[in-house]
Amino acid sequence: MADSMRVGIVGLGLIGGSIAAGLRSAGQYEIHAHDLDSSALVLGESMGIVDRIHPTLDTLASVADVLILATPVRTLPSILPHLTQFEGVLTDVGSVKQPIVDAVLVNAPRLAQRLVPGHPVAGSERHGVDAADPNLFRHHKVILTPLDVTQADALARIQTIWMSLGAEVVQMSVDHHDDVLAQTSHLPHLLAYTLVDVLAGFGDEREVFEYAAGGFRDFSRIAASDPEMWRDIFLTNKDALLRLIETFIAALNQTSKLIEAEDAEALTERLTRAKAARDYFTSIQPKSSES
Amino acid sequence: MADSMRVGIVGLGLIGGSIAAGLRSAGQYEIHAHDLDSSALVLGESMGIVDRIHPTLDTLASVADVLILATPVRTLPSILPHLTQFEGVLTDVGSVKQPIVDAVLVNAPRLAQRLVPGHPVAGSERHGVDAADPNLFRHHKVILTPLDVTQADALARIQTIWMSLGAEVVQMSVDHHDDVLAQTSHLPHLLAYTLVDVLAGFGDEREVFEYAAGGFRDFSRIAASDPEMWRDIFLTNKDALLRLIETFIAALNQTSKLIEAEDAEALTERLTRAKAARDYFTSIQPKSSES
Repeated sequence: MADSMRVGIVGLGLIGGSIAAGLRSAGQYEIHAHDLDSSALVLGESMGIVDRIHPTLDTLASVADVLILATPVRTLPSILPHLTQFEGVLTDVGSVKQPIVDAVLVNAPRLAQRLVPGHPVAGSERHGVDAADPNLFRHHKVILTPLDVTQADALARIQTIWMSLGAEVVQMSVDHHDDVLAQTSHLPHLLAYTLVDVLAGFGDEREVFEYAAGGFRDFSRIAASDPEMWRDIFLTNKDALLRLIETFIAALNQTSKLIEAEDAEALTERLTRAKAARDYFTSIQPKSSES
Repeated sequence: MADSMRVGIVGLGLIGGSIAAGLRSAGQYEIHAHDLDSSALVLGESMGIVDRIHPTLDTLASVADVLILATPVRTLPSILPHLTQFEGVLTDVGSVKQPIVDAVLVNAPRLAQRLVPGHPVAGSERHGVDAADPNLFRHHKVILTPLDVTQADALARIQTIWMSLGAEVVQMSVDHHDDVLAQTSHLPHLLAYTLVDVLAGFGDEREVFEYAAGGFRDFSRIAASDPEMWRDIFLTNKDALLRLIETFIAALNQTSKLIEAEDAEALTERLTRAKAARDYFTSIQPKSSES
């Protein structure tokens, strides 16, 4: 298989490991990996999803045709200076897209033309390479946000990789991605964390959670996500998120005023509008992307 | 079965119908029902879950040992004046408990000693007697909020009914119930409705909903609930809810300030505290009440 594409995965956790496992199933890839945690590498090798493990990022970068950064966003500044000589295509899997663009422009500007920022919109509450799932991305959207300077063949290469993982690849600008995700993911997570924190702060945690039918149960599930990852997401998508929080608080204040004034008609209108939007959503939603 | 308890159900929808179906399975009850919609009554009779249907509330009240009000809260003022001569025990299934207490004190104060306000904390997105489920309340909590003047035998009778439906019966004061439910159910629903409404207001509904991974999907599910029912809940639990909204907005503003100041440490602490509360919740949660 000397002609197969050599994919280098930086960070062999759940996401990196699932990419490795999926590419292994797809067949036509040679899979290389680096992780600061050598036990993850050894595990990945023993699982048969990695062909070659690299104790250093430099050796990985010297052999890979494509590098996929699957580490937390805060590690970018320590990773990118090692990639200044890298000749292949670079992509990542972060939930916010501006940080990878900024980090590349600062640390390895030569790479901008071969940078294809990416975001697989698939979640799991599990962690670690041992939870790697070759089907994690199947029927899920992957958003690619190429820059104006990104070369067409670099983009095509990353599209091919995600398609061989069964993902549905879509494309949008960096800004638009970060706005849409602030709306659909970052703000909801922030609200869930805030609600759980407010309620737990009332003291008798046990009671508050005990009567958590419907409503609160769904919220609190969201707040089970990794705090450090979400802190980074909130901080790196700060501007979009702060604007949204402001809009949300204004809307909540409006609803609050309707309740205070007992304006049943306007309140019904508002709730009905939300339900209509949700019903519309359900009607357009492909069954396959439910997860 | 001349000695079996005669239970009168006012409002034969999903909840009333499920109570009827469950009591029918339990065996020792004679089930009577009234509904303004005669087709619901005919359907209930043909399903075999109602022994006798009553075209008027007055005849139902004249034969029932126990009356269960399972109609929307806004119908109470038109129902209670018919119950001034009722000699049995009165209960209801509303999500807010102060309204039934107020309505009884205003319209049928004689009944206060035989009033046992109740709230089965079980939800379903279905509607109507045809969706009646004899196991809807099984392993779910039912909160009873007897008044100081409520007689012990009246309380015992309602406890017996819910226990024969398989529910776990707990007791608390009216005020405490309305506070706890504002926290665990009413505020989360209001947040979900508000979020869906804010996002849908951005225009391209399709796109906002299309990338709704994890976070937003759970929220929008909540906003699929019946707008009129929730309008009534928000309005009847107005005081507790308005206080909570204020607390929530203050917390959201604090978090917003931490993000703005990029205070990673304080932000992590806040998110970790929420996750810890959620994890604690998961650890104490009996598997059986997951639904």
